[in-house]
Amino acid sequence: MTESRTYDVVDLIRRKRDGGVLDDAEIDWLIKAYTRGEVADEQMSALAMAIVLRGMTPDEIARWTQAMIDSGDRLDFADLGRPTVDKHSTGGVGDKITLALAPTVAACGAAVPQLSGRGLGHTGGTLDKLESIPGWRASLSYDEIRRQLDDVGAVVCAPTDTLAPADRKLYALRDVTGTVESIPLIASSIMSKKIAEGTSALVLDVKVGSGAFMKDVDDARQLAATMVELGASAGVRTVALLTRMQTPLGLAVGNALEVREAVEVLSGGGPSDVVELTVALAREMLAAVGLDDRDPADALQNGQAMDVWRRMIRAQGGDPDAGLPRARETHVVPAPAEGVLIRMDAYAVGIAAWRLGAGRARKEDPVSPVAGIELHAKPGAYVRTGQPLLTLHTDEPQRFAHALAALDGAIEIAPYGSRPAQPLILDRIG
Amino acid sequence: MTESRTYDVVDLIRRKRDGGVLDDAEIDWLIKAYTRGEVADEQMSALAMAIVLRGMTPDEIARWTQAMIDSGDRLDFADLGRPTVDKHSTGGVGDKITLALAPTVAACGAAVPQLSGRGLGHTGGTLDKLESIPGWRASLSYDEIRRQLDDVGAVVCAPTDTLAPADRKLYALRDVTGTVESIPLIASSIMSKKIAEGTSALVLDVKVGSGAFMKDVDDARQLAATMVELGASAGVRTVALLTRMQTPLGLAVGNALEVREAVEVLSGGGPSDVVELTVALAREMLAAVGLDDRDPADALQNGQAMDVWRRMIRAQGGDPDAGLPRARETHVVPAPAEGVLIRMDAYAVGIAAWRLGAGRARKEDPVSPVAGIELHAKPGAYVRTGQPLLTLHTDEPQRFAHALAALDGAIEIAPYGSRPAQPLILDRIG
Repeated sequence: MTESRTYDVVDLIRRKRDGGVLDDAEIDWLIKAYTRGEVADEQMSALAMAIVLRGMTPDEIARWTQAMIDSGDRLDFADLGRPTVDKHSTGGVGDKITLALAPTVAACGAAVPQLSGRGLGHTGGTLDKLESIPGWRASLSYDEIRRQLDDVGAVVCAPTDTLAPADRKLYALRDVTGTVESIPLIASSIMSKKIAEGTSALVLDVKVGSGAFMKDVDDARQLAATMVELGASAGVRTVALLTRMQTPLGLAVGNALEVREAVEVLSGGGPSDVVELTVALAREMLAAVGLDDRDPADALQNGQAMDVWRRMIRAQGGDPDAGLPRARETHVVPAPAEGVLIRMDAYAVGIAAWRLGAGRARKEDPVSPVAGIELHAKPGAYVRTGQPLLTLHTDEPQRFAHALAALDGAIEIAPYGSRPAQPLILDRIG
Repeated sequence: MTESRTYDVVDLIRRKRDGGVLDDAEIDWLIKAYTRGEVADEQMSALAMAIVLRGMTPDEIARWTQAMIDSGDRLDFADLGRPTVDKHSTGGVGDKITLALAPTVAACGAAVPQLSGRGLGHTGGTLDKLESIPGWRASLSYDEIRRQLDDVGAVVCAPTDTLAPADRKLYALRDVTGTVESIPLIASSIMSKKIAEGTSALVLDVKVGSGAFMKDVDDARQLAATMVELGASAGVRTVALLTRMQTPLGLAVGNALEVREAVEVLSGGGPSDVVELTVALAREMLAAVGLDDRDPADALQNGQAMDVWRRMIRAQGGDPDAGLPRARETHVVPAPAEGVLIRMDAYAVGIAAWRLGAGRARKEDPVSPVAGIELHAKPGAYVRTGQPLLTLHTDEPQRFAHALAALDGAIEIAPYGSRPAQPLILDRIG
């Protein structure tokens, strides 16, 4: 009977606006009616704004998430030969971790079904990065995903159309209505997709700092705790790491530049922070599915992770041996002084890379595979005046000035002393 | 240069969401872009919700109002032979005051250009009431309004299409998105229409109580003060009376029923509360245009107000001598006990009348001219068990049950003692 009941959406909006609570049947109806177009975009955006400002109770968040999952299909990989586990990052600058992580975890015996997204704003998207590999395609059918998980053990691809369609519609709406910044809405959006994707376990990388969505560690901890709880109540073992995003991860920001760095990591090299985070996340993922006896650091050193990477790229039409494209123009930013580099701001570098063409302002915009920024030093390093700090890459040199403007004030060099080492991983929740 | 500047609407929404302030150029751009459809409904509804929850500064409200006026034409009656003055009520149950008031004030020498609205929800609309008069039409052109003001001195009609079109669009949006309840948005909506209408002075009847939009006297006082300030800063002399709306005004609720009661008042009779408020508002209107030597109570007694009423109705195609339609079915609610009637709740009676067909749920719905409720006693009266308290009127008897349900708990009778007299006019602001 509750199935067929309808509600007055204006009453529900007003209740939330006035700080009240929506019950299960009301949330179920809302999400269904919105998916079908019976609740209009302007009504949902008003409700979303009320949620941003009034919040949701844990029960409301759980039901909202479940209703978004129920708006589409829930994939099921329970009968694969191996356990499934996935990772999700809340997004940062230079965050190419997925690229090496998925093959590493697959090389250690788990299956990684990573349905991933595209970049918007100053943070890049995993699919955009992989698309800089000639021939690689992001869209797979459910059967192709399944087959690849069986054969290769790892898939990074776009979500299928039937995966949480309510979330897709709501996410696009929030993006244009100033209603993104809400822990309940962020948590339910991420978790509805991840739970619907059919993974049995999930490790969250919740970023904190200037280059992250969450600037404040308490907000990040609350987001992490909310998502861990949502995962647990949906039967998905979920753990979150809080990690620092004050400076870009690694030494490359931009699509092809980041793929190149990920391949270095898969070759047993690469920047130490990228390796540290890849191994830490891989250990969490393997532990979550009972494979704590496997060592992901070994898989990176002995070529097994690289082997899975090559098969994963090839299975989606890409050529792992093809050269990656390079920008036609570069511009070097030299160190303005001698001393210890104490700050290279992640947000500023992300915005500069975006302005060079690495990111998009609107969903429908294309991204440049070659645009981006190489870092030649990271905070803590001693630099001399004139030494290259950054190399900016783009095919469109008229973009340099605007990108350089974003870097204004982003770099600090202290005449002496040293920057205290700051841990990359701040906390673990779950 | 500021004319052609454009803004990122998402930035403006986020600023207001986070408690910030929009500047003049931003507000001008927003209202223009929304009127043109460049800012989408879903963006404006998110902003409206942020305004409901975060408020606006006095400067923001003034500019918002001005921008809505500037979205259309501002009428100008400065060269009429007599001064213009209008009244606006924030809406109540049984509030037919305009019907007798406009002719009374015109009979005393002012011109009353009242561009009025239709009812929505439990409060009736003046145009709906007048449309129960056979032949009467609400739509006039600007030239017709002008001519009628010259010839008759009073016009009650629908706003012309070019009057504050931004407000019309925003009002319809707020109605379906739970963003009506905001003093800045209510004040700017009312005042943009009234200022654009070209009146030189304005008297506001701000209702307080269960049957009013404002349930709380402090909110009502704040709304009144906001509107008085907006009027003053636009060069319109504005005064507000705060009046009680705890029980219906007069003894009739419903379209033709209320016209009949207004005609009684114009004949020198009618319920004492309706006469008291009509005269008080008329005195304020006349004082605001320097005609404080005229006595509106005289105009009601000596037939001059009735004379203007008849000419006003006839000028808009109506026949003042035609009989008003009556409902085919009636149902009497008797007093359940003997004693002093201490409560007859305005909101409940309004909802019951609405359910009988007197009001509309959606803008496009028709209203019944005959549906409504007659009151046979008002709070303070001594009643005997079984004596008629209310008569419900409708052409559709299946509506009685639902209407009676709205009256549940709305009537209280105390076995002895008396209800202290409560003043109708609570305060004057301006």
